[in-house]
Amino acid sequence: MPFPPLKFEKDNLKLLDQRKLPHREIWRTCRNSRDVHWSIRHMVVRGAPAIGVVAGYGLYLGMKNFRGDTRGFFKKMEREAKFLKTARPTAVNLANVIDHIYATVIARRAVGPTKQSQTGIASLSPSLTARRAGGTSSARNDRAVADLKKCVLQEAKKVHRDDDVLCRKIGRHGSALFRSGDRVLTHCNAGGLATSGYGTALGVLYSVKSSGKKISVYADETRPLLQGARLTAWELTKSGIPCTLLCDNFAASMMQAGKIDRIIVGADRIAANGDTANKIGTYNLAVLAEAHGIPFYIAAPGTTFDFHIKNGKQIPIENRHEREVTEGFGKRIAPYGVRVENPAFDVTPYRLITAFITEAGVLKPPFKKSFRKLKCNPSSNS
Amino acid sequence: MPFPPLKFEKDNLKLLDQRKLPHREIWRTCRNSRDVHWSIRHMVVRGAPAIGVVAGYGLYLGMKNFRGDTRGFFKKMEREAKFLKTARPTAVNLANVIDHIYATVIARRAVGPTKQSQTGIASLSPSLTARRAGGTSSARNDRAVADLKKCVLQEAKKVHRDDDVLCRKIGRHGSALFRSGDRVLTHCNAGGLATSGYGTALGVLYSVKSSGKKISVYADETRPLLQGARLTAWELTKSGIPCTLLCDNFAASMMQAGKIDRIIVGADRIAANGDTANKIGTYNLAVLAEAHGIPFYIAAPGTTFDFHIKNGKQIPIENRHEREVTEGFGKRIAPYGVRVENPAFDVTPYRLITAFITEAGVLKPPFKKSFRKLKCNPSSNS
Repeated sequence: MPFPPLKFEKDNLKLLDQRKLPHREIWRTCRNSRDVHWSIRHMVVRGAPAIGVVAGYGLYLGMKNFRGDTRGFFKKMEREAKFLKTARPTAVNLANVIDHIYATVIARRAVGPTKQSQTGIASLSPSLTARRAGGTSSARNDRAVADLKKCVLQEAKKVHRDDDVLCRKIGRHGSALFRSGDRVLTHCNAGGLATSGYGTALGVLYSVKSSGKKISVYADETRPLLQGARLTAWELTKSGIPCTLLCDNFAASMMQAGKIDRIIVGADRIAANGDTANKIGTYNLAVLAEAHGIPFYIAAPGTTFDFHIKNGKQIPIENRHEREVTEGFGKRIAPYGVRVENPAFDVTPYRLITAFITEAGVLKPPFKKSFRKLKCNPSSNS
Repeated sequence: MPFPPLKFEKDNLKLLDQRKLPHREIWRTCRNSRDVHWSIRHMVVRGAPAIGVVAGYGLYLGMKNFRGDTRGFFKKMEREAKFLKTARPTAVNLANVIDHIYATVIARRAVGPTKQSQTGIASLSPSLTARRAGGTSSARNDRAVADLKKCVLQEAKKVHRDDDVLCRKIGRHGSALFRSGDRVLTHCNAGGLATSGYGTALGVLYSVKSSGKKISVYADETRPLLQGARLTAWELTKSGIPCTLLCDNFAASMMQAGKIDRIIVGADRIAANGDTANKIGTYNLAVLAEAHGIPFYIAAPGTTFDFHIKNGKQIPIENRHEREVTEGFGKRIAPYGVRVENPAFDVTPYRLITAFITEAGVLKPPFKKSFRKLKCNPSSNS
């Protein structure tokens, strides 16, 4: 059962406001890149793959009203790309998607005019294009810029479609790891809402269910923003998978009681050695999993891998506003004057991870070797 | 800086409503044992030692309006004791204090009349008392019952005074374990509010501060009822000890970053082998402490030890209403239809505990041996 958190309609992006779930389903319209930046920053949309898809459309929305020549187009696209990348720092999908679209459009610029017209892309130089294609320089420039815009949108849509394909592949690969009767723990929301609709960690569980195996899920509520209580519980309940909600500090006790067979979570950025940044609290679960001998899986597409960084120490961790902790639900809970730490992510060292479930298959240690499979996969960022 | 959560005034018990803290300081009056039972059950007052003290007064309030003979008095006292013990099942202090007062009153009954008049206690048989002391049977019975009531109150007040003495001893013993500069993590609230005013785990920290050592504290917010965010942060801020609030799932990441030097928590029941029931989430911290090589201390008075049970498996764990999880912030957060687990406590195995800080000193492993020190201590329940 897919839960798409975004749709592109009438040349605008519509986002399901995830801050209002599960009680209200409100769609917000983003008309420009500022709207998109704001929506990512304030977590109207969240989840690394979903942020990536949304950023792609954000780049298009930043360019769609551009007036000027192609040189100006690329200058503006660079600015828009930089701006969108500042929305949130940890999830690498955002930067990966923007870099990918940017590079694709730049690369196509260099292709000759015949090929260009096939792909709908004009060269950087409007005068050159005009000379080659005939017609007035101004009209041809307009056409070239329109073609560039079209290319950005096409790539954004491709990223959107690809994400769904990747998630379903992840689901199929991961499904084989689960047995009927398994009681699975998950943290935060790595479901449809965190992707284009199918999910990574929850996508695996949807796949397990589709294959006829019966599982039940414990969902960490995931303070401070309660994505587990609000989003994962919502998705699972709608999907007909039995779901039991836990406060984050209950999980250890459930493991001690032998009630958890497997743990599966998503990821926001995975370093070359396998160190994984994900929602704060993930590292806690990984330590508990090791102490109780429970398999600990990360489900993520190639776009979440960052092979440019060696290990988790190089992953930037976003610190969010203390009000998320002290006033979580429109009500002040802590006394004024207290200090607060509110990191949005933590880093789980690779040695605590049993396997990565990716579109290229289930990657087991040693990760240096198994990650090669992903690097050869065209959908990966590397 | 003491934070007394209760006071006995004008023959009634007044409780600081801890559900309203830190923003409103409301005192509720308990006029009978039903009020006390309700207040314990609904966590107007919480914390094992505080519950014990309050239960003592509850027994008195249950008896203070009794009319009848001494035989009837003891029958009713038995009923009241049983009733009060059902308020909450896990913290053993409640049962320990009630049993202690009950046994003391029963024991004094057997003492001869001269001794009785010194201690203010009459015998079980009003007719016998009447014959010995002279006067009408009815008047002497009234006096005997009044004396019994007085005895219950005296014992309740003694438990109250003793708790403060124990906490201050715990504080002094524990203080030696801490160094200046230590960054200490605590969970839930084992402070003044959880006792007669000084605290167990926080009492140690107040003692450390009084000794001139500078420490800072990380306080877990402690879902679902947020005793850390609401009570511990409030106490520490008022005490001038720097306090940083964390969501429960942040602690692992803080330990990974080397920001935690020591962990100290309270307890609700400690079995003969050292297995310790405390607020849910404590076991999680103990596993993390072991994984990161951080000392893990339990601070508790002898009244929290239950030498009648061999290990933690015999400790009853209270499950509370699911609304505490799904509507914890005065607002429904989870979708309807989701299942919820809400155990109020977990059990930390003795092997994860570095030491118990008690009024009899710091008790290190092997606990079977070191606990003997506590058993010989008159303040212990055994």
